[in-house]
Amino acid sequence: MQLASTADISDYLIAPDPGAARLTRTVAGVDHTGAPVRTSVVEERPLTIFLNSREIVTAMTIGDYPEYLALGFLRNQGMLADADEVTRVDFDEELDTVVVRTATETSHEEKLKKKTRTSGCAVGTVFGDMMEGLEGLTLPRTPVRTSELYALSHKINRTPSLYLEAGAIHGTVLCQGDRPLVYMEDVGRHNAVDKIAGWLFDTGTPAADKLLYTTGRLTSEMVIKTALMGIPVLASRSGFTAWGVEIAQQVGLTLIGRLRGQRFLCLSGETRLIRDADPAAIADEPRQQRRKGAG
Amino acid sequence: MQLASTADISDYLIAPDPGAARLTRTVAGVDHTGAPVRTSVVEERPLTIFLNSREIVTAMTIGDYPEYLALGFLRNQGMLADADEVTRVDFDEELDTVVVRTATETSHEEKLKKKTRTSGCAVGTVFGDMMEGLEGLTLPRTPVRTSELYALSHKINRTPSLYLEAGAIHGTVLCQGDRPLVYMEDVGRHNAVDKIAGWLFDTGTPAADKLLYTTGRLTSEMVIKTALMGIPVLASRSGFTAWGVEIAQQVGLTLIGRLRGQRFLCLSGETRLIRDADPAAIADEPRQQRRKGAG
Repeated sequence: MQLASTADISDYLIAPDPGAARLTRTVAGVDHTGAPVRTSVVEERPLTIFLNSREIVTAMTIGDYPEYLALGFLRNQGMLADADEVTRVDFDEELDTVVVRTATETSHEEKLKKKTRTSGCAVGTVFGDMMEGLEGLTLPRTPVRTSELYALSHKINRTPSLYLEAGAIHGTVLCQGDRPLVYMEDVGRHNAVDKIAGWLFDTGTPAADKLLYTTGRLTSEMVIKTALMGIPVLASRSGFTAWGVEIAQQVGLTLIGRLRGQRFLCLSGETRLIRDADPAAIADEPRQQRRKGAG
Repeated sequence: MQLASTADISDYLIAPDPGAARLTRTVAGVDHTGAPVRTSVVEERPLTIFLNSREIVTAMTIGDYPEYLALGFLRNQGMLADADEVTRVDFDEELDTVVVRTATETSHEEKLKKKTRTSGCAVGTVFGDMMEGLEGLTLPRTPVRTSELYALSHKINRTPSLYLEAGAIHGTVLCQGDRPLVYMEDVGRHNAVDKIAGWLFDTGTPAADKLLYTTGRLTSEMVIKTALMGIPVLASRSGFTAWGVEIAQQVGLTLIGRLRGQRFLCLSGETRLIRDADPAAIADEPRQQRRKGAG
């Protein structure tokens, strides 16, 4: 496959860094013929996220951008609101921890204390809190040009990435028009999305004119996170779940899946598609560009 | 693609049921040409798991085998030990809850009370508890014939499944020799594994002579769960993470990845491979059999 040139990559604000030493490791083994092989595999390390003095979760992550991951996770779980002023984010590489500090105690911490008193464990409440955040939410009716969809898919697939280097990883890309801006990868696809959310929050970048591209499936959780971030369009090369489609329709999110070569399916928001590209003029994906089951 | 005949499917103790009404839904949308389409997508629903009176987690699941999912989740998280006597498992379809009851309070409940007192939230401790379960664990040195690997991969890929029907789903298959026994699918690949764990626990089936096949990646969590189940071999068509490989080597688990057609990589336990098949005699996968990025 022909990869993108440096000029293409320089369009990104943040591009993948497949050469970074900390992100992959060479491992020895044997192949199907019995021949010894050395292969590159992605790293995976625990990162424990604290909100002030409270331990929230341990995520398994590739380990880049821990501050964005922590901020984005807390945002997407509704544990950090617009009104909360983040005073510091401290990453400790030796302890694998990141501590997000706010000026005052957050409403989540208050809520967590209450939950603790009743059920003793907050795990089950996280999803409910995310759904709560959707109430009354309506996304801007941002149009999507099919020419931009095709251009984005083409550029993203040609971008040198950890996926192309070592496989077994998911990618999420924040895009504007036909330009991919921030390309995050992680062993968990939700981490990749959370890192985008953290970047948006940290930089104060508006979301209403953006599109989110993911290599993963369009599940309820992915749709909810995109909507909570205020991004009105979500596109993927993978498929849908029924609840993901239902929530997208409910909040007015444009949902495009199975985007490969000239093909795609739009299961929510098709009236916002502007068909300015002739699908017949778009080449089918060459086989080498196909992602093969990065689960 | 030629699917397996009824005779092949009847070899399974539990096979996928892609025709089951509750598991997929037909959704309307448009395709890349603007033509209206109706497509089949997988369901995804919340299931809240209780251990006795304690709410443990809400999992997003396709919804089949909720009892196995609950039992397997609790087993794999180390919340239910061999010594715990399960007296009842009650699934309530209307409330989307499943309650696992034990004869006496489990040590996990005791532990959770302690954690609650200190950190107020048990989310971050779940992974630590799983790692704890690995201490001192050594798996049986069960040999693996490459002829069986190839036969399993061929049979599993030809089995009618929700993946072939609607995509966007992961599969995990418990196998013995060249025979796939229990094939579970779910929107989350960990749910599919947990349902296998629940089945093993419920039926009291020995694990030492089994192989686990997954469509997902060989991450640390997948390797840990397989080892905790006592299954000595884990195979996948997807790739590896570095920590997954490290844990497999540490507990003596045979780890085979990127298994497609005649190809595979073995990154742990290669001395236990018995090479009784000529890879050159194995056909490459026809393109239609490839799983395309079930993320």
